[in-house]
Amino acid sequence: MLAIASCLHQHSSLLKEQKSNNHLTARMSAINSENPSTLENAMQLMIQTFHKYSGNEGDKYTLSRQELKEMLTQELGNYLGNAQDKDAVDKVMGDLDSNNDGEVDFTEFVILVGALTVACNDFFLEYHEKDEKKGGKKE
Amino acid sequence: MLAIASCLHQHSSLLKEQKSNNHLTARMSAINSENPSTLENAMQLMIQTFHKYSGNEGDKYTLSRQELKEMLTQELGNYLGNAQDKDAVDKVMGDLDSNNDGEVDFTEFVILVGALTVACNDFFLEYHEKDEKKGGKKE
Repeated sequence: MLAIASCLHQHSSLLKEQKSNNHLTARMSAINSENPSTLENAMQLMIQTFHKYSGNEGDKYTLSRQELKEMLTQELGNYLGNAQDKDAVDKVMGDLDSNNDGEVDFTEFVILVGALTVACNDFFLEYHEKDEKKGGKKE
Repeated sequence: MLAIASCLHQHSSLLKEQKSNNHLTARMSAINSENPSTLENAMQLMIQTFHKYSGNEGDKYTLSRQELKEMLTQELGNYLGNAQDKDAVDKVMGDLDSNNDGEVDFTEFVILVGALTVACNDFFLEYHEKDEKKGGKKE
């Protein structure tokens, strides 16, 4: 899927810009503070999830094909039907691993999670709107 | 910042492709299940955070300039120094609101959070590597 590859590239540029932004990097350790906000908590959980799986084999900072599969099955099994639907797992792998080296890095992982979150949000908004219409609000 | 605008565009294409992917959308409600995984939890927290602020004024599905400022101050205050550093807030606003309509939508919000998370992860890895070297592991 070209969209992911292209977005990944843009994301990397953005990251480089942000790394040179002293406002942010100087306080980057704040995410590890004792009282994280809801959003900081979400960020921590994403980082923790990736490293839970990436350290199992090979490069400990990337997900191998097997590690990605484990992550998808255990973390997104509700979406993918607990990997019964093998086509879905293979499709996500193929989409993310754009250079076919069998490794998915953290940025690619975040793009996947981001895209899924946007899709979820849209789904809920549509559901919510249908629900409101059912409620009998006629204009 | 062009990177964000371009990534947003790519993200939108990706989203459209995923919406037509039955594997995912059919199970989209799974994120609301009783036993969410760590990653699903992170996704829920991102969605909740956005809507906590987006509903306060104007379009309830976008962040106005004021709502974005509240979100940044309360959720990322540790990074931005509790908005004492006004330049930082203004810079993030300017970066995200690429079409200058004073509104930030959910996709733009997710891109910001994703970019920050990638930067955080990099920061921790660098810190961790320095720490390992300090530990006296000489090759």
